[in-house]
Amino acid sequence: MSVKKIPDIIIGRLPVYLRALQRMSDMGLKTTSSQELGEHVGISAAQIRKDISQFGEFGKQGTGYSIQFLLDKLREILKVDRIWDVVVVGAGDIGHALANYQGFQDRGFHITAIFDNDKEKVGRQIGSFTVEDTEVMGERIKAAGVKIAMLTVPAPAAQEVADVLVQAGVRAILNYAPISLNVPGNVKVQYIDPSTHLQRMTYYL
Amino acid sequence: MSVKKIPDIIIGRLPVYLRALQRMSDMGLKTTSSQELGEHVGISAAQIRKDISQFGEFGKQGTGYSIQFLLDKLREILKVDRIWDVVVVGAGDIGHALANYQGFQDRGFHITAIFDNDKEKVGRQIGSFTVEDTEVMGERIKAAGVKIAMLTVPAPAAQEVADVLVQAGVRAILNYAPISLNVPGNVKVQYIDPSTHLQRMTYYL
Repeated sequence: MSVKKIPDIIIGRLPVYLRALQRMSDMGLKTTSSQELGEHVGISAAQIRKDISQFGEFGKQGTGYSIQFLLDKLREILKVDRIWDVVVVGAGDIGHALANYQGFQDRGFHITAIFDNDKEKVGRQIGSFTVEDTEVMGERIKAAGVKIAMLTVPAPAAQEVADVLVQAGVRAILNYAPISLNVPGNVKVQYIDPSTHLQRMTYYL
Repeated sequence: MSVKKIPDIIIGRLPVYLRALQRMSDMGLKTTSSQELGEHVGISAAQIRKDISQFGEFGKQGTGYSIQFLLDKLREILKVDRIWDVVVVGAGDIGHALANYQGFQDRGFHITAIFDNDKEKVGRQIGSFTVEDTEVMGERIKAAGVKIAMLTVPAPAAQEVADVLVQAGVRAILNYAPISLNVPGNVKVQYIDPSTHLQRMTYYL
């Protein structure tokens, strides 16, 4: 595989291709074309061919792509050909929803713990998890070598929690708190804030 | 205001600026600089100046930006200087979390109804909402002129529901179902899929 620097915008599209290909595979399809994949994901065939060609020659002119081969390659590129342990911080509504969500395992992720600083919530059961105290979060993450966290605490608490996570070795944070986080350059953050996503669309209404 | 076409990537950053500025305003600050705003949102001062200058001359050399003026302008540009009615489809965990979420009102949104096709859930209370049957969804949306929906149904049902929403006049869909939607060109879709967001980060781990 090439080691050249791939633009982040391309990396951002790969999980979408992976999801669509998994769906095609679940439907029993064996091969696809950039045209067909493009119709599934709403991206042009030319763009898809260009994106995928960044990583090598995966398709054959005229016969298209083997779905299984492309699935394997994309999983390898995105490093989800393994299962990553993930912790959830915040046992509110979103924390509950994530703890109960069945859609992580076959996408490369496994929630191992859920933390909250509210003594009322600590010890409670959420699905198969017992809510743990954020006081032990840092050491638990460090001991287990967890690299990924989902942050669902209120905005005013988010930066402080993020600092603890980073200190403990977390390198990827999915942040549901509606606030931008300051983290070192070697830590990735992705944001999920429904209001921000909605405001991005109202511009066009 | 200029009517030139603004790149979507810039539009995507404006809600992030708006959120940070609102936070500064809540903290009692009156003015800011592109440098300071940049530190809050993790974007370079030069990029911020460039983005904002697309819409006019909002800052003064040396004195920076009036936070209130910039808030007003960004709200006007993003059309959240008003309150948009929003419907939620799907009364599962995410639907619950959204219905109970207090963070919409001061960002320009107001949930007016929540729908589900499960007869067991129809009629149940979620916060201040009574779950309504998706059978009446289209006519209710049409009658109320609702333009925005949040879609939290399972992936296999999502396209069919999206078709009904678009048919009823919805022009912006925040899609929590882990599947790409096919919609007409005049309909915007934003995606929230935690696995996709996580996979975008594992590449870098």
